[in-house]
Amino acid sequence: MRGAAISTVMASCMKMCSLTRVTNRAVSTLGGNKLKVSAEEATVADQEVTRKSFTDLQRERHKQANLSVLISCPPYFNENKFMKYLSQHGKVANHFFYESYGTHAVVEFVERESIDSLRAATRVPHGDDECVVPFKSRLLTLKSDRALDRTSIQCLRQSAVPINELIQKLCKAQDINEQVYTLLDEYQLTDENIRLRFLVSSLIKDVATAYFPEATVDPFGSTVNSFGKLGCDLDLFLDLDNIGKSSTGKAAGSFTSEYLMKHVPSGRVVTQRILSVISECIDNFGPGCTGVQKILNARCPLVRFTHQPAGLQCDLTSDNRIALRSSELLYIYGNYDNRVRALVFALRCWARVHGITSAIPGAWITNFSLTMMVLFFLQKRNPPVIPTLDQLKSLAGKDKFIVDGNDCTFVSDLNKIPPSKNSESIDVLLCDFLEFYGNFDFIKNGINIRKGKEQNKPDSSPLYIQNPFEQTLNVSRNVNHSQLERFIALARESAWVLQEQRNHSSERDKQAWGLAAVFLPSVSQGFGKGKRKKRKGFASERIKGLLESLKNTDKAR
Amino acid sequence: MRGAAISTVMASCMKMCSLTRVTNRAVSTLGGNKLKVSAEEATVADQEVTRKSFTDLQRERHKQANLSVLISCPPYFNENKFMKYLSQHGKVANHFFYESYGTHAVVEFVERESIDSLRAATRVPHGDDECVVPFKSRLLTLKSDRALDRTSIQCLRQSAVPINELIQKLCKAQDINEQVYTLLDEYQLTDENIRLRFLVSSLIKDVATAYFPEATVDPFGSTVNSFGKLGCDLDLFLDLDNIGKSSTGKAAGSFTSEYLMKHVPSGRVVTQRILSVISECIDNFGPGCTGVQKILNARCPLVRFTHQPAGLQCDLTSDNRIALRSSELLYIYGNYDNRVRALVFALRCWARVHGITSAIPGAWITNFSLTMMVLFFLQKRNPPVIPTLDQLKSLAGKDKFIVDGNDCTFVSDLNKIPPSKNSESIDVLLCDFLEFYGNFDFIKNGINIRKGKEQNKPDSSPLYIQNPFEQTLNVSRNVNHSQLERFIALARESAWVLQEQRNHSSERDKQAWGLAAVFLPSVSQGFGKGKRKKRKGFASERIKGLLESLKNTDKAR
Repeated sequence: MRGAAISTVMASCMKMCSLTRVTNRAVSTLGGNKLKVSAEEATVADQEVTRKSFTDLQRERHKQANLSVLISCPPYFNENKFMKYLSQHGKVANHFFYESYGTHAVVEFVERESIDSLRAATRVPHGDDECVVPFKSRLLTLKSDRALDRTSIQCLRQSAVPINELIQKLCKAQDINEQVYTLLDEYQLTDENIRLRFLVSSLIKDVATAYFPEATVDPFGSTVNSFGKLGCDLDLFLDLDNIGKSSTGKAAGSFTSEYLMKHVPSGRVVTQRILSVISECIDNFGPGCTGVQKILNARCPLVRFTHQPAGLQCDLTSDNRIALRSSELLYIYGNYDNRVRALVFALRCWARVHGITSAIPGAWITNFSLTMMVLFFLQKRNPPVIPTLDQLKSLAGKDKFIVDGNDCTFVSDLNKIPPSKNSESIDVLLCDFLEFYGNFDFIKNGINIRKGKEQNKPDSSPLYIQNPFEQTLNVSRNVNHSQLERFIALARESAWVLQEQRNHSSERDKQAWGLAAVFLPSVSQGFGKGKRKKRKGFASERIKGLLESLKNTDKAR
Repeated sequence: MRGAAISTVMASCMKMCSLTRVTNRAVSTLGGNKLKVSAEEATVADQEVTRKSFTDLQRERHKQANLSVLISCPPYFNENKFMKYLSQHGKVANHFFYESYGTHAVVEFVERESIDSLRAATRVPHGDDECVVPFKSRLLTLKSDRALDRTSIQCLRQSAVPINELIQKLCKAQDINEQVYTLLDEYQLTDENIRLRFLVSSLIKDVATAYFPEATVDPFGSTVNSFGKLGCDLDLFLDLDNIGKSSTGKAAGSFTSEYLMKHVPSGRVVTQRILSVISECIDNFGPGCTGVQKILNARCPLVRFTHQPAGLQCDLTSDNRIALRSSELLYIYGNYDNRVRALVFALRCWARVHGITSAIPGAWITNFSLTMMVLFFLQKRNPPVIPTLDQLKSLAGKDKFIVDGNDCTFVSDLNKIPPSKNSESIDVLLCDFLEFYGNFDFIKNGINIRKGKEQNKPDSSPLYIQNPFEQTLNVSRNVNHSQLERFIALARESAWVLQEQRNHSSERDKQAWGLAAVFLPSVSQGFGKGKRKKRKGFASERIKGLLESLKNTDKAR
């Protein structure tokens, strides 16, 4: 009975926190995660990778994806024989396995011809009572006759650990610094997960380029901005701008040749029509694509769907170039100094367990706003941990980058940015962040990462964070007074708890300590009670209950 | 005033008869019809072409279409300069001009690379206030700066002449034989019109193969069965059967590779889904495609649309293989002896002006049923004009052709069929057809072109014509008693009129004579009056009025 109760609490907790989007099956593969490295190793590895420019890294990822296939594997099989079968078609550059409604493999070949060869040997499924939509993609199923010939396959985790497991891991760390990097290591996207995401992007590109050969599909947002958490949505940007750029359409003699094309009232209608047809293709043909929704009347029209074999929720938009530029800016900050990502991941987790942020749109602070607040805080340190956006712009030299009249110029080469003179440790920064915003004059001041200093609020929004590119907009326009108050109270409370933790490190064995302690419920949860009425409490409260249960279970054994 | 009245009558007449689907502009190009040849020449030319097998002819047409582009021309231009411009991209094999919402050209190149070259020099239209869906097809617009540099372009007619013009032409013939061949010449599809139809088919194939590379799109029905009239619908068959046939999917080692594909409950759902997406593409992207309708819940799901630049109404279906086979059978009969097509065209025109057949679905006799009746009549002559379907089957040798369990076997090589021993003239056959069905025992007998003799009716349908391939079905199941009675009465009446005409050839100058005379209203129009209530009369009645007006106008001059 107790076991069942714990499962229920865990399940609610997972759902509540939206910390995992993939199924229990995927969660069960945690043991096989070969990516588990110590926080120090991860940090060193990060820094080695990060010096690549955003564009170069994306190009490399696209190339890998274009050479890859996604294979649904038989329930039991022998990895060596599997690889031997694939090698018949060409040299394999890279491969890995994961679980999502069964075992899957991402296999990257060295040459594109190998995929052609594999596809040529691939048949359309047929049976007496099965009918299929014969759309041939790079999603294959490998079937095996000999079920007995079985070896265990190492499957890589593609989702974040549940919050309770995370807390247990945090409690085993040496200090708060190690806790923060452990959290980063558990939550951040793995190389393999990013490969999987680019492969899905490449499969959607195949759909789009069938009609628009010059179109590209690029992941943006959390998949590429270095702040993505395992299980986060895959945002895709369909870029049609290259169409028509290839031809000069010069008049030869007295004639000019133009394509006969459908005329529509606006660019928005073009986007809506193209997304509409692509969504029909994905819905009717796309193997493994389910829950396709057209949300074409939104400010930014989009198509939402689940890519089941990849275990990803995808949002396909078009005409969203500033978002792509934002992704690169975050990538620059995230890879400039490894404390940035560590701090952002820790604070996002903290905000999520306390219901400060939410997966549901509403008056909550968004992850993006919270990230802006972290960046601003880091710019305000003395000496600053990171440069201001204006400083990044001045480092760009003569290259201007203007999108719809908005100046989105900043340096792309990380090596051109002078290293930070600030060497504060992550526990100090974490504590001071909470204190900084616990005492911030939100009534008077707005946050401006372009200048790296407070600005007078141009309007009466409770929280004002200037959009770094569309400078007249407020990133946190959606946040109301009560949500801001909850944030402030929780920041104060958590600052106090964390300070206490740093002073009394001897009591660690007995309870959740350090970073884990600030994930526990606090007095602040009483705020706005009248409005929220019978809400079922925050994740933090459930975590406390869960930890208590676990203690009791241990005692009972 | 009188002139205006005539125009109104003519317009109603044209509409009523559905004899022309294209605009008045197209009609105005009649003068430039270079295809006008005498009936004898047409017949000889027919026989030279006809010895090709159906399959070879279709293959040739597909190849031409694949090498062709459709160009919307500027209002005024110089043909030589136009051709010189195109020749920059490669040698032109064939070209012609026609009118449909402006002047258009179909240009066939010798090599496909020329189209790539032309497209590379073609730009996407852009302007300050115009937005286009950037779908690049083989439909181009040629623009010219120098409007003054003008030569007259010979435009080919792509629609049948209006009935009144036809009657005037018929009255100028020497005898009824010549009248019948004049009608055939005026109504039958021209080589250019068939090229245009295959080009549209090829453009739709481009849309389908974007997702299903092995798919083909074939025109069927009147476009290819040799009984098509200018302006008739373009029936297209999307064939997906080749998908999956290319790969053996052999197991290599212990694995078999299959595509991951969407499973659906039935083949019908596959067809519906694919047609649905293709219709979305045509509707949203297809230049010049308008009025797209999905009719997916019909027995044979279809997508209907208008291809405006080609001036064609198109029906795209899938999974309709027997219809394709029927087209070939009619092609065989139509090209075996030139009297077959001449008789069918004359009788279809006769039936349409009297409202025996209709463009609207209902209890009317269909063109296909009427054609079956002509074939049956020709099989019943002594000696027979054409062989029975069973005879054609026996000539096929060992090659069987079975579609869904139905035996659709018949000889494909026209040269293998012994020539007809019957040499009756067309006026005799026409007259005897009307007499034959005026006295046919429809109560007892059904029509069977497979055996070439009457069969006992298996059910009580007023008119029973056995489907030649699906032998348990009645082709004319839709026809009710009153429609059959109208047909019989009109056949008797017309047989009498035609007999009279043959006996009194001296009165020709004074009135519509011969074939034209049987297009005039008759006593039979009184049939079923109670049911039809205030219907506006048949075309034949309007024709009579029109001719009277014309005579009066001539007198007044």
